[in-house]
Amino acid sequence: MKPTVVFWYEFASTYSYLSAMRIDEAAASADVAVEWKPFLLGPIFRAQGWETSPFNIYPAKGRYMIRDISRMASARGIPFQMPPKFPTNGLKAARLTIAARSQGADAAFSRAVYAAHFGKGLDIADDDVLTDCLTTAGLDADEVRLLSVDAAVKAELRANTEEAAALGIFGAPSFTTPDGEVFWGDDRLEQALDWARKRAPN
Amino acid sequence: MKPTVVFWYEFASTYSYLSAMRIDEAAASADVAVEWKPFLLGPIFRAQGWETSPFNIYPAKGRYMIRDISRMASARGIPFQMPPKFPTNGLKAARLTIAARSQGADAAFSRAVYAAHFGKGLDIADDDVLTDCLTTAGLDADEVRLLSVDAAVKAELRANTEEAAALGIFGAPSFTTPDGEVFWGDDRLEQALDWARKRAPN
Repeated sequence: MKPTVVFWYEFASTYSYLSAMRIDEAAASADVAVEWKPFLLGPIFRAQGWETSPFNIYPAKGRYMIRDISRMASARGIPFQMPPKFPTNGLKAARLTIAARSQGADAAFSRAVYAAHFGKGLDIADDDVLTDCLTTAGLDADEVRLLSVDAAVKAELRANTEEAAALGIFGAPSFTTPDGEVFWGDDRLEQALDWARKRAPN
Repeated sequence: MKPTVVFWYEFASTYSYLSAMRIDEAAASADVAVEWKPFLLGPIFRAQGWETSPFNIYPAKGRYMIRDISRMASARGIPFQMPPKFPTNGLKAARLTIAARSQGADAAFSRAVYAAHFGKGLDIADDDVLTDCLTTAGLDADEVRLLSVDAAVKAELRANTEEAAALGIFGAPSFTTPDGEVFWGDDRLEQALDWARKRAPN
């Protein structure tokens, strides 16, 4: 059986966009499975005293992030556009992702959300934008939306966020391996996949 | 003529250690020259409201940093040992580096300081440790120490730090290219070298 790397992501995270657009292909090449696990950075940031994104709190870091991601998106041939309002509230998108998983479309829907948010600069708190993303992922928008407000879905997202904090995760994207290693940042994706493959029981 | 990448480093920076131990070799392979440029993060951190290292302010990030560097040091076959007091004051080491440059030994001395500080966990604010580093770099310790307290050396270090801030540098290591691009982090070294080589005038 393939080892599994858990991909921890937040829809307001620019670097998670970079990973979302390449993780399935990279993992397939490395013969590793991926579990897509959305969580919310808000509660984790607030616990360390941040009321907004560190890219807003530290403007030099924010300006650098935009340039850094622009360079990498360009090198990888994907579009990049900062949304006018940043960070956005990714709560609805995260709940829809959990609901979409029951139909095997959580990764496809997540990629559609990232493509809208950071590829086109659209507001993913907007219901019409999310409906388009659900449709793009081949889902019945009404059905998934109804499921997404179920108490079990809300509880699962809360549990994901609590689990992330308990694992020591403080940013996104993060990757965890079956033996408990945490890797942070799109630039650690290859290391995480490599680690999982080499440490997998035969 | 080879394009030059400027390597901005601070002796208290753990990730700068990783770059210091490989940049000359990596740059030679990429046919790029390197200018070693020590600066102080203290004034830059204070300007954004930090009185100590972010790895102390945010403990989850600090714990992760140690694990992340341990993994990479191990993969690269170099030792890693956190010094008991972190961050240390790298002022004396930075001034000695500027003094050592007049003898063409700034890179060798800097590597010796990093090897002592993060390879062996020694205190690089300690004069005996610094004397050993000067000797390791083939320098006359008394001569370089005398030069290092010269007003011109002190002024140059201040100017480096002000230049770093003016370029938008907010952390170390950072790398800048002749056309003004800034790259932050040991994991961006290859990108910076590649950028400098491809954009160099022929």
